[in-house]
This record gives sequence, structure tokens and C-alpha cells, in this order.
Amino acid sequence: MLFEAKDKIVLIGDSITDCGRALPIGEAGNGDAGNGYVELVDAFLQSAYPELKLRLVNVGISGNTVRDLKKRWETDVIEQKPNWLTIMIGTNDVWRQFDRPAIPEWHVYIDEYERTLEELVIRTKPLVKGIVLMTPFFVEACRDDQMRAAMDQYGAVVRAIAERQGTLFVDTQAAFDGVLEKAYSAQLTWDRVHPNKAGHLVLARALLDAVGFDYAKRA
Amino acid sequence: MLFEAKDKIVLIGDSITDCGRALPIGEAGNGDAGNGYVELVDAFLQSAYPELKLRLVNVGISGNTVRDLKKRWETDVIEQKPNWLTIMIGTNDVWRQFDRPAIPEWHVYIDEYERTLEELVIRTKPLVKGIVLMTPFFVEACRDDQMRAAMDQYGAVVRAIAERQGTLFVDTQAAFDGVLEKAYSAQLTWDRVHPNKAGHLVLARALLDAVGFDYAKRA
Amino acid sequence: MLFEAKDKIVLIGDSITDCGRALPIGEAGNGDAGNGYVELVDAFLQSAYPELKLRLVNVGISGNTVRDLKKRWETDVIEQKPNWLTIMIGTNDVWRQFDRPAIPEWHVYIDEYERTLEELVIRTKPLVKGIVLMTPFFVEACRDDQMRAAMDQYGAVVRAIAERQGTLFVDTQAAFDGVLEKAYSAQLTWDRVHPNKAGHLVLARALLDAVGFDYAKRA
Amino acid sequence: MLFEAKDKIVLIGDSITDCGRALPIGEAGNGDAGNGYVELVDAFLQSAYPELKLRLVNVGISGNTVRDLKKRWETDVIEQKPNWLTIMIGTNDVWRQFDRPAIPEWHVYIDEYERTLEELVIRTKPLVKGIVLMTPFFVEACRDDQMRAAMDQYGAVVRAIAERQGTLFVDTQAAFDGVLEKAYSAQLTWDRVHPNKAGHLVLARALLDAVGFDYAKRA
Amino acid sequence: MLFEAKDKIVLIGDSITDCGRALPIGEAGNGDAGNGYVELVDAFLQSAYPELKLRLVNVGISGNTVRDLKKRWETDVIEQKPNWLTIMIGTNDVWRQFDRPAIPEWHVYIDEYERTLEELVIRTKPLVKGIVLMTPFFVEACRDDQMRAAMDQYGAVVRAIAERQGTLFVDTQAAFDGVLEKAYSAQLTWDRVHPNKAGHLVLARALLDAVGFDYAKRA
Amino acid sequence: MLFEAKDKIVLIGDSITDCGRALPIGEAGNGDAGNGYVELVDAFLQSAYPELKLRLVNVGISGNTVRDLKKRWETDVIEQKPNWLTIMIGTNDVWRQFDRPAIPEWHVYIDEYERTLEELVIRTKPLVKGIVLMTPFFVEACRDDQMRAAMDQYGAVVRAIAERQGTLFVDTQAAFDGVLEKAYSAQLTWDRVHPNKAGHLVLARALLDAVGFDYAKRA
Amino acid sequence: MLFEAKDKIVLIGDSITDCGRALPIGEAGNGDAGNGYVELVDAFLQSAYPELKLRLVNVGISGNTVRDLKKRWETDVIEQKPNWLTIMIGTNDVWRQFDRPAIPEWHVYIDEYERTLEELVIRTKPLVKGIVLMTPFFVEACRDDQMRAAMDQYGAVVRAIAERQGTLFVDTQAAFDGVLEKAYSAQLTWDRVHPNKAGHLVLARALLDAVGFDYAKRA
Amino acid sequence: MLFEAKDKIVLIGDSITDCGRALPIGEAGNGDAGNGYVELVDAFLQSAYPELKLRLVNVGISGNTVRDLKKRWETDVIEQKPNWLTIMIGTNDVWRQFDRPAIPEWHVYIDEYERTLEELVIRTKPLVKGIVLMTPFFVEACRDDQMRAAMDQYGAVVRAIAERQGTLFVDTQAAFDGVLEKAYSAQLTWDRVHPNKAGHLVLARALLDAVGFDYAKRA
Repeated sequence: MLFEAKDKIVLIGDSITDCGRALPIGEAGNGDAGNGYVELVDAFLQSAYPELKLRLVNVGISGNTVRDLKKRWETDVIEQKPNWLTIMIGTNDVWRQFDRPAIPEWHVYIDEYERTLEELVIRTKPLVKGIVLMTPFFVEACRDDQMRAAMDQYGAVVRAIAERQGTLFVDTQAAFDGVLEKAYSAQLTWDRVHPNKAGHLVLARALLDAVGFDYAKRA
Repeated sequence: MLFEAKDKIVLIGDSITDCGRALPIGEAGNGDAGNGYVELVDAFLQSAYPELKLRLVNVGISGNTVRDLKKRWETDVIEQKPNWLTIMIGTNDVWRQFDRPAIPEWHVYIDEYERTLEELVIRTKPLVKGIVLMTPFFVEACRDDQMRAAMDQYGAVVRAIAERQGTLFVDTQAAFDGVLEKAYSAQLTWDRVHPNKAGHLVLARALLDAVGFDYAKRA
Repeated sequence: MLFEAKDKIVLIGDSITDCGRALPIGEAGNGDAGNGYVELVDAFLQSAYPELKLRLVNVGISGNTVRDLKKRWETDVIEQKPNWLTIMIGTNDVWRQFDRPAIPEWHVYIDEYERTLEELVIRTKPLVKGIVLMTPFFVEACRDDQMRAAMDQYGAVVRAIAERQGTLFVDTQAAFDGVLEKAYSAQLTWDRVHPNKAGHLVLARALLDAVGFDYAKRA
Repeated sequence: MLFEAKDKIVLIGDSITDCGRALPIGEAGNGDAGNGYVELVDAFLQSAYPELKLRLVNVGISGNTVRDLKKRWETDVIEQKPNWLTIMIGTNDVWRQFDRPAIPEWHVYIDEYERTLEELVIRTKPLVKGIVLMTPFFVEACRDDQMRAAMDQYGAVVRAIAERQGTLFVDTQAAFDGVLEKAYSAQLTWDRVHPNKAGHLVLARALLDAVGFDYAKRA
Repeated sequence: MLFEAKDKIVLIGDSITDCGRALPIGEAGNGDAGNGYVELVDAFLQSAYPELKLRLVNVGISGNTVRDLKKRWETDVIEQKPNWLTIMIGTNDVWRQFDRPAIPEWHVYIDEYERTLEELVIRTKPLVKGIVLMTPFFVEACRDDQMRAAMDQYGAVVRAIAERQGTLFVDTQAAFDGVLEKAYSAQLTWDRVHPNKAGHLVLARALLDAVGFDYAKRA
Repeated sequence: MLFEAKDKIVLIGDSITDCGRALPIGEAGNGDAGNGYVELVDAFLQSAYPELKLRLVNVGISGNTVRDLKKRWETDVIEQKPNWLTIMIGTNDVWRQFDRPAIPEWHVYIDEYERTLEELVIRTKPLVKGIVLMTPFFVEACRDDQMRAAMDQYGAVVRAIAERQGTLFVDTQAAFDGVLEKAYSAQLTWDRVHPNKAGHLVLARALLDAVGFDYAKRA
Repeated sequence: MLFEAKDKIVLIGDSITDCGRALPIGEAGNGDAGNGYVELVDAFLQSAYPELKLRLVNVGISGNTVRDLKKRWETDVIEQKPNWLTIMIGTNDVWRQFDRPAIPEWHVYIDEYERTLEELVIRTKPLVKGIVLMTPFFVEACRDDQMRAAMDQYGAVVRAIAERQGTLFVDTQAAFDGVLEKAYSAQLTWDRVHPNKAGHLVLARALLDAVGFDYAKRA
Repeated sequence: MLFEAKDKIVLIGDSITDCGRALPIGEAGNGDAGNGYVELVDAFLQSAYPELKLRLVNVGISGNTVRDLKKRWETDVIEQKPNWLTIMIGTNDVWRQFDRPAIPEWHVYIDEYERTLEELVIRTKPLVKGIVLMTPFFVEACRDDQMRAAMDQYGAVVRAIAERQGTLFVDTQAAFDGVLEKAYSAQLTWDRVHPNKAGHLVLARALLDAVGFDYAKRA
């Protein structure tokens, strides 16, 4: 596994990351990391590798777009001095275009999204051991759905940045698509955006796969 | 994996099973199975095998001893018509002897514990595809600790019943002991009884191992 | 307009009708009819025809299927002695098949749906001036979506019963489809099932159209 | 209809406008516009003209007089950069003279009312496509009632300003008077000031009439 | 003063009497008699005549009509074994005809009102030292107002019964009319039905006048 | 009566005055003057002299001593520009000496009390039509009781100041003593400090007597 | 000390015993014995004699008189099968005569008090190792105070019964009188009835003295 | 006893001292000193020596380490001008090393602990009559337990400082060890850190012993 003893892993994102984590900083280990994929990833790592004393810190904030991440990058990422960073952003950048179409200042279009996200990655790469870029997703099987199609475009941007910048990459949409071949979206999420526990496990395992977690490992 | 399409799995126990599940019946799938190992097991099964449409039902109740299970066995187990049943009981049977020593009617001593648990297993075995017996546990590394020693005796009873009755068996204490070799108990639970999320994942994975869950499987 | 002075109109259904109405009976006129289409219909009628003293009674209950309606038909419909009755049911009959596929006793399949709904209509027709049958709906533009396709089948059943029994008929799905040609579903509802106020107005106006409400009318 | 694609409509007023809208700005579309006439107007516009992507913003505040509006005009109106503006103010300017007669600094007498309101209109007219001036009202049929008589005088001031400044005009009192010919005031409001849903629909339709809303229009 | 040592005075009525009194019986003396005229009357009596040890019991219930009083007369009046009884009822009998005109079973028309009230008086007179009949009232100066006119008719019925049955009589409407000559209704009540503290003092003093309370008396 | 049309009467004191009044200023007339003697005095004045439009303002604060009054005199008295001022202070000055004897900085001994109170009176007298000085009190019949004896000394100080400065004077202790001749203290207050409604009426009437209120007056 | 290993001690009384204990039975040891003298006595016994495994059970109920104790004696005392019983009752028997003098059925006069209490003692004596009778008390130094004088009479009754029936006896009033020689009542209780923690310690130590607790003992 | 009339005793520490005390300062005597050993010590002193008017002030704060004490020493100790000071700190300094091992900045290792504590003692000694140093403790009988062993080392530091600086010393661990010889830890605390009432009495009596409290003393 890529994480090493005493590594500090900061996870940033929107409500899917946040999940009710503690403020101002969601130090994992006491319920403070929220009840989503971050807490699950921490539980896997702590139960399988307790001796590594890995430290996960959830700094997701509900409703955030990449534009919001940029505003708080200094305090919430750089000042945290992480060894590893994971980023999953884009849901709200896209969603606001569909549920609040009349409020353009709440939309983050794809150019700004790409430019801002890449900028943040470039700025942070030299400071950390590694970055994991996770795509946003929409739990909708029909790829012609307007919002799914838009989300796929944003996901493609994430993949492109990951390739250009040489970061780790997690295709969360692909992970959900696998389940959607056998299940209707309502089994994983009531609004196609916020996963239930099974959906968060899909995310957690996709992230763990990317960092080489060994399921055979027992503490 | 042992579970088959449309199997209904009932999980009974005390507060470690309960974890705030819905009343009167904790149907997994909508937050109603509580936030402990039952929900985690369900998340693993639903995300890896969504096509099986497995149904998990949490009927744990906080504070229960095996004597309490017996009183509600008809409604909470038999009438649920499960295909599979998991039982994890004994924590309170032992704990009350240590934290409320002056109240003997709250204690369930080992003879009654063994007799009652075996009786419930014998009664139910013919009605289900399989039973998983899980030991109670105490997250304390020192085996000479009085309460740990007592809990180990109750765990040995569970193992003996599992062998005599030919059920599946999960040694939860052994699972925790593995972690305790590398971590102090406070990393997994604040009172040595109620696990945090990492501790519940230890339980969930021990149970999943027993039924042959395949971690390589993705939906 | 079809409603006459002092007519009592009972509206039955599920959460889309309920919308937080008062218990045990949601007498419109004081916030007790909930905050959905029932309250809107009442507001139109009371402001345009105050002299008619029309009485609307909301007896929707969240989560209900047609099977639930049948159980409470005597107290909640017959004993209310309505002059008019509106029925909009079927959402949960279908939805549970998609979000809780492992719990078959929560599903109402199409045969039972048709049989039960028609039975209720036949029983009630002789007792009232008129019945308005409203289809269930799913605010999803893609007709190939599994749940939309299922909902359309249930809607077709409602239409068939309306024709056979000679009741008024409201195609709520068609009303939403009109909007969906120009808007993404998220503008009307966050989960494709529960409408926002604009969505409830679509329902209210579809119902008012069916009973011949005159928009030019001012009190 | 007068509103055009992407128009932003700001609605300002007192508690009758406010109705529990979100702070600091009541963007319509997600329950944030309160539960009064603003939300109803938005529902009509969004369901009939979804393609126009009209944006309604409720900035009413309970208890406000025209003196209060003046204090927050810069932030709550000018800085919002509306294309259209609706104003309904005066209820508290009058009411405080009748329910708190001993507190003169809470009263806004008719000269100050006229001067202030006209000033605000003159200042804003050049910045918007149009202004809709709505009278205050008192849901009391007897025109000799002291408070009704006072409210009528304030309403006459609004009409005069509308004529002088060439704005749109809504006579809300006349709209209610139509209903009061056929109904007692208690059918529309429990205190003659705050309308129930039927009363808010009277207001909404009076406003929609003024901007040429077409009731025959379906999305 | 008419009350004598150790007299028990029961006061029955609707919300104007109730005012949040304790359930099931509002024994005055500890905040349990609500915060309306009953508490004020008790305060006058206890502070001026503490040696009499008078006992006031509030059995008003919000929303009650005379029809409701009849249903609970046995338990709430007869079984209380009062020495004195005061009755103020009729507000809701009338009000429901005006605010909920479409619900006839909530209306108590004047014949039933007169018949029922007189029946209760006749039944109780032999059991008590005295009865005080208080009219209902509507705090509206205009006697042509429909609801005021109706309330006056009910008040006239109360006066007639008081005369026929020889009970004490309190014209609460007259007491309020005196104030209304010098004040607008909003100074006494926000909805013309429920008085503020000044309004309740009007009621308390009208009742105290009827039983000969001496304001010059100090304990 | 001494109060004249449009007089503004400010009432300052401790918890006995405060009684849950609104912050920052307890304008009487809408429940904002608390539920003690201030509200009762207002109710008497508004119901008997509604045409005078008298304005009562409660600025009592729980726990205050005269030292606290001095600190907020500018904002809470002078800036209110009262025509009349009533002051009832001293309870806590004395009480803290008895219930918290170990905390000397919470005690206000009699010299500081006299000096401070007189200073406030002298400062304010030129600015108002009149001042009413009310003694503090302790509802205890036994004058030898230590706390009663102390309170009597503080009361004597108030009387002396009233005489020296020529203000109106209310001997609240004497008013309670009258009742205590016929009643045990528990009938008026549960802790001998905070009166129930009957006790507050004793205070209200003592204050009304001092300003010449006419009980025969009806509006 | 009189208590022996595994003794079960039931403590019955009113609010002074109750102090927020758990329902239906206040088993000491987990915060369930309330926060008064019962919890303190338990803390002394458990910390000094943990090996005895003494069991204290609080069955006090706020507001109870001896008449109430009689009604629940079977379930709350006899069925608990105590080895020891303590009784402290009488406060409300007396208090209601002083704070609610107009409600005679809430008073328990001294004859009924004596008869009932002695009856309960006689009935229970044969079933237990010992009974401790504790007087009621009133934290008032002046013995001429009416309520203090009455309480002393009830206390004398308790003493007489203790002597006649040969039970242990605790003069709680004497214990408080000792403190009152050096302190004002407000240091121990805000209403002379309910002690603060120091007052409860006075009670606890008086009870411990009676059963021969050894303060030199350390576990 | 060492405390003299009017002495002010400040008690500082972590959650075991805090116990819900009032903010900003926990003046004992009205429930404001929390519900732990501080309140118990105060109750002993006030009930046995009421004439001394001793003043206890609880300034414990949950979660504090000695590093936190240092930050607030000026305001919470020096500015309080105590005559006596008690300090019990160290629990969290140790605990965080065991339950949050991945967060090094939350740990206070033994060098910093010793240096900081001694510095605070040296600074304060000249300003007070005396200081009582209390060890931290861990209610675990097994001295080989990692956290118990660590706590013992910190306790040894406290003893050494007390000896070097000549302060009073309380070995709280020894006091608990006495009980643990006869009882399992769960009888005194559910998490081995926070005592129940019996555990707090162990602390209170250890502290009282150190200052020479006389248990034979009655007020």
C-alpha cells in the first residue's frame, strides 16, 4: 500500500466528502470524519494497519464547487501540511446548472473547472507524496441524460488532468456504473447524488484500490 | 459466498448489533439497520452483489442478554422467517456482573447462558439455511483482566455450541486480539465494549469471512 | 365548473397528497390540508368561488400504496360522505420495487394495483357525484428509464379504469412531460417523485382543468 | 407577458412578502422564497414558462415600514441588479398607529410614507425594465373602519405615485374587496392582515394580471 | 362580596377562559389557572381576601362550544362540586360559522346554543350557591359587522337565560364597548377574539363587579 | 391620576420588575413587559384610560443591584427620556449577603446602596415629571428574621431618600405585611422573594395607589 | 456498621428523596438514584465498603405525602423485598396546608399522618432487618414560624413512632438546626424545603451516623 | 483544618474537575461548581464549617492538558487571587497518546508536562497560602496496562514536584487502588477515566484528608 507510517491524508470535496464531519477540521477517529466514504476508508486503514498510525483529515464542505475549494485552499489544504491529498469535486459545479438554471453565478462551467482544478493540483503536487484525483459522478445509468452527460464531461477533465499531472486517478463514475448494470439507481441513492452506505463503500473501495490497499491484510 | 439470491438474513444481538436501528424491525437499506457492523455487512453485500437482492434485518436491542433474546425469539426471529441467522450475545450477561455487582437478577451466569443459547440454536436450526454464532468480546489485551477472563469463558461456550450444533462460528475476540497486538484498546473503543467504526469493520469483516465473501468481487 | 355549492371534496393519495396535512383529517382552510396541490386547489376555489363554500378534505398518507388505501377506505372515504372524490395513488406501489427490491411484501404489482383500484372506484361511484382518477407520475424525461416505464404502465391502468368506469381522468404524467420538454427534472423536484411548489401547481392546474375551473373568474 | 428570458425580479415588502423566506436573500426555487405570494408567483412562472429561466428574489422583511426599506435599499435592491422590481409596503406604517398608539417613533405618517416611497421609485426606475407598485391592504369590508380608512389613504398614495412615475400598479385592496363581497374576512385571514393561502393567491393573481400572465399557457 | 369563606368557584369556557391552564383541572394559585382573566380574578381575591381561602378552578378548554361543554359537564362541573359557577361560552359557536363556513358540523346555531346553555344552567342551579353567566363578545366596534351582529344575538340569549333563571349576569361585550369608544380594537386584541392582558383585566373586573368585589379592600 | 396623556413611564428594577420582559427594552402592550407587576399596571391603565395613550417601558433586569442600575442608567433611563420613573431595587443587594456570604464583591452594603440610589434620583429628578421610589421587600412575617431585618433597613433608606428628595414613595413591604397578617408567605411566593400573580397584584395596586389611580373609572 | 454484605436498602420519600431518580425504580450506581442524599449515601457506602455489594434503591416520588406512600407501598416497598428501609415523609403533608390552603383534599393532617405512617411501619417491620425513620424538616431557624412549628409536630410524631416501634431514628431537623446556628437558611436551600448539595450532605451524614458508618474506613 | 475563615480556594484541572461547572467561573454554592469532587468538597466544608464562609471556585475545563492550563493561568488562577490552589492535571496529556496516536500535536510528553507544571507551581507559590498537587489517575488495576503505566509515571512527576516545591500532595491513584483491591473498575467509572459519584467521593475525601478535614465535626 502506498501510505506509509504517520502519513497525514487530507480529503477535500463537497457534501459527499463532508457527510457531517466536525468543524473546522474533521480529524478521523472519533466520529469527526463524517459518516461517508472518508470514515470508511479510515476504518479500513485503522483496522488493517493500526501500527501505521495513519491520520485522515476530512475537509469537505457541503455545496462546494471547485471555485469554493480555491478560496479555502491555503487554510484547508496547504496549512494542513498533508502527505497525501485526495480531491473529489464537480458535483455542484454541474448540478446548479440543472436545478437552479436561473442563477448563473452559482454555475461553474467546464473551462473554469478545468483551469481551477489543474491550478490547485500544480500548486500542491510539490508539497505532497501524492494526490488522488477522483471524478465527480451522477448515479444515473442513462448516459444520454443531460446531467449525466455533463458530469461525464467534467469527469473526463479530471482524467485528463490526472494524466497530465501524473497523479493517481479514481473513476468513481465507472465504479457506480458497474453497480448500475445490476441495480436501479434508487438502491444506492435517493437523489442520484448522495450515496447511501453501500454507495459510500463503492467510493471507499475505489479509493482504496487506487492506493493499493490489500484486502487480505488483517491487523 | 454462502448467501444466495433473495436470502433474508436476520442479525440479533445487543447494543453492538442494535446501533440505533429502526423499530420494530431494522430493515437494512435506508439507514434503518443502525450504524454498526450490520450496516457495513449490508453495504458490502449490496455493492458487490446487488443482483442477489439480499435482505438484512437488524433485530439487536441495547442492553439485551441471552435471557432477553429468549423472551422475544418467537416474534423477532421465528416470525421473521429468516434464511440465515447471526447471533452475537453475552456482553451484558457478563458486564452486569462487573459494573452492577449488587443486582444479581441482572446477571446471567454461564450455565444459564449456555443452556439458553443452545436451546435457541436447536430450535431454529431446522428452520434456516444456516446460523452464524459470534462470540461476545471485550477489547482488552490483558487476558488476566477479570472481565476479559469471564468474557473468554462465555466465548468458549459459544465455540462449543457451534461445534456441537454444526453452525458457522466467528471468533470476534480473536479478530480484536489481532488488532490489539498493534494498538491500544482506546483506538478501537472508548469503553472497551462499544467499537468505533474501525472496530465495527473488524466485526463486519470477521462475519463476511465466515460466509465466504469475495473481496475481489466488484458489481 | 363541476363543483357545486357546499360540495365536499375528499382527496386521497400518498405523500404527494399528504404534504404534512393535519391528522386525522386534513380539513382545508387553516393550513391543515398540507402544503401541496390540495392546498393550492383549495386556494383557487376559495378565492374564485368563495360563495360556494366548497369543502376540501385531504386524507393522503405518506408512503401509502393502493393496498393501504383499501384498508382505510371505510373510515377515510366512505364515512367522510364526500360529494366528490379524487384519487392519486401508485407511486409507492412502483417505487418500492426499485429502491427496496429485497422486500417483496412492500411491492404492489400491477395486477393487484388494477384490481384494487377498480374495486374501490366501483364501490364508491354510486355514493358520489363524481370521481377524479389521477395517474401516478415519475418526473423523468427518459421513457426508457426502468422506473418511468413501470410508472407509465400503472398510469395506463388508471386511464383504462377511468374509461371503463366513466370517471374523470387526469394524466399527471402528461402534464409533467410538457414541462420536461423545456426543463430538466431537477427544476421541479429533487428526487423525481416529490414536486416543489411549481410541480404542485402543475398537479393543481391539471386537476382544476379536469373539473372545468374558469381562470377568468374573479370573486 | 412582460417578463423576458433571464429576467431577475426582486420583490420587496413586509411580513406579507417575507413569509419565512431564506436569509439574507430569498432566491425562489427551493423553498427559499417563503410560503406566500412570492412563491406562488414563482410557481406560476416556472411551470408555465420554464424555458425563460426567470429568477425571483424575495427580500421582504417582517415588520418593515417604508422607512426600513429605505435603510436597506442599497444592499437589498440596487446591489441585486434586478430587471424588475415589485414593492408592497405600508401595512406596518399604518398598523403601528392603531395597535401601539403610544409609541410614535414606530409610526410612519402619510407624508413621510409618500415622500420616501416616491424617492425610492425615482431612484430605481432608471435601473430596471419596470416597477410594480402594489398597495397595502386591510381585509376588512367596512370602509368606515378606522384602520381600513387609513389604509385606503395609503393605497391612494401608491396609486398616485404609480401614475406620476408611470409604473405598473396593483390594487391589492380592490382584489380583496371583490372576495369580501362574497365572504367574511375570516375566510381569508385570521387577523385581517396576514392572508392564508387563498388570500396569497389573490395577491399572486393580481400581480400576475398586472404583468400579463397568460393562464391558458401550459409548458 | 358574594363569595364566602372556603367557597369553590369553577370557571368554564373556551380558549379565553383556558389560557394555557393545567390539565386536567386548573387549580388557581400556582400558575395552573392559565394566564387570562381567571388568574387575574384569583389574584384579586387572594390578595384582598386571603383569609377566605377561596378556591378557583379553571376548566376552560380552547375551541369549545356549548355543545362541548355539555359533553363534559358531569366530570368538569358537577363532579367538581362547586359552590359557584361562571360560564362564558359562545365565541366558537359563532366564529366557526364565519371562518370555516364550509364545515356545518362545527357550527352551533342559536337555537341549539340557547337550549343547551339553559339546560346546563337549570341542571346546575340547585347544586350551587350561584351562577354567573357571561356573554361571549367580539372586540369590534362596528355593530353592523356580520360576526359582531351574530355575537350580539348570542349575547342576548345569555341575558335572557340569566333573567329567566335568576343567575348573575356579566355583559362582557358592553365592557369592551366602553373601551372601544376610546380605543381601536387592536389595542386590546390582535384578532378581535383573544384579549391581551388589558383585555383580560376588562373581563376580570366585569366579573368582580358582578360579585360585589370591593376595590377599597386591602388585606 | 397623576399620569397625563402620552406620558412615558419607565420602570426599572431587578427580577421582580423584569419577569421575562423583552430585550433590549420591554415596551408594554404586546407581552413585552414581562408577566409581573409592570404588565398589571399597564393593563389597569390601558383598560381604564385608553385615551391617554400612556407608554410603559420595563427595563428591569434579573439579579441587578443598585450598583448594576448605575452602570446602565444612561442608556436604560436617561436615553429613554421618560416622563415618569419608578425604581424598585435592593433585593439582591441584601440577598447575596445571605445566600452567597463568601462572595463579598456580590454584596452591596447599605452605605453604597443609599449613596448610589440617592445619586441616581438626584441626577434624574430634573428630567422627569416625577419619580416613584418603591422599597425592596421580603415576604416574611417575622421581623426578627435576619434577612427581613436587613431588608427593612434598606427599605428605611428608600423612605428617607424619598422624603429628602420629595419623590413619591411606595412601601411595598407594608403592602405585603398587610396580607401576611392573614396568610402564610407561601400563599404569595415560593421563595419569599418572587411573588406569584396575587403578590404582583399587591405590588401593582400599591403603585397605582401612589399615583392616584381611580378604581371606579371604567373606559 | 449495621449494613451487611448484599443488603438491599430501599429509601422512600418525597421530592427530597426523589431528586430526579430513574423510573420506575432508582437503582443506585449509574446516576439512577437521583442527585440528592440517596446518591451521596450510596457513594459513601460504595467507596468505603465496595466489597459488601450493598444495593440502594431510591423510590422517592416528588410531591408525595404519607397518603401517597400508602397507595404504592405494596409495589414500591414490599415487592422490592428490602433488607433495610428508610422513610422520610411529611414535607408535603404540611406544606400544602400553607401554600394551597384552599384545597383541603391535598392536606394530610397530623392524625392521618401518624396513623398511616405507623401502620406502614408495623406492616413492614417483620419483613426487614431494620427501618430508619427520618423526620421531615423545614430549614427555618425561627421555631415560631407557623410552618416550622407544624413541621416540628410532625417530626415529634415520627420520633414517637420510632420509639414505640423500636426503629432507628434520624432527627433531620436537629441536623439542620445545628447548621442554622451558624448560617442563614439561604446557604442551604433556596426555598427552605429543597436542600442544595451541602444540605443533602447534612441529610446523608445524619443517616450514615444512624447506621454506624465509620468515617475512618477507606476501601 | 488548614483552611481559614474567608479563604478562597481555586480548583483547576480537566473534565474530572470541570463536571459541567458554570462559565466563565464556577463559584460553588448554587450548582455552579459542577457535579464532581469540587461540589462534594464544598458541601463538606459548607455543612461542617458554615461559619468560615469558605469560597470554592472551579476553573476546570474538559479536555485540558497542562499546556492548556499554562495558557489560561493568568486569568483563571492569578487574577482570581486565591488563598489556596488545587491542581489535578495530566489525564489528557497521557490519554491522547493512546486514543489519538496519529495526532502528535495533541500529546504532552512527560518532559513538557514536568517542566510546565513545576513552572506554574513556582510562579504561584508566593501568592497563596498553599497549593495542593493531585496526581492524575487511571482506574485500572493492572499496573502493566500501557496507559496505567504511563499515568503512573506522570503521577510520579507530580509527587516529585510536590516534594521539591514543598506543596501538599494527594495521591489520587493510590486512593483508587485501595478501592480496586475490592472492586472491579466498572463499579467506579464506565471508561476508567471519568468517575461516578462514588469515585468523585474518593477524590473529595483524599483532598479533604490532605487539608486536615475533621469528619467528627458537625456544624
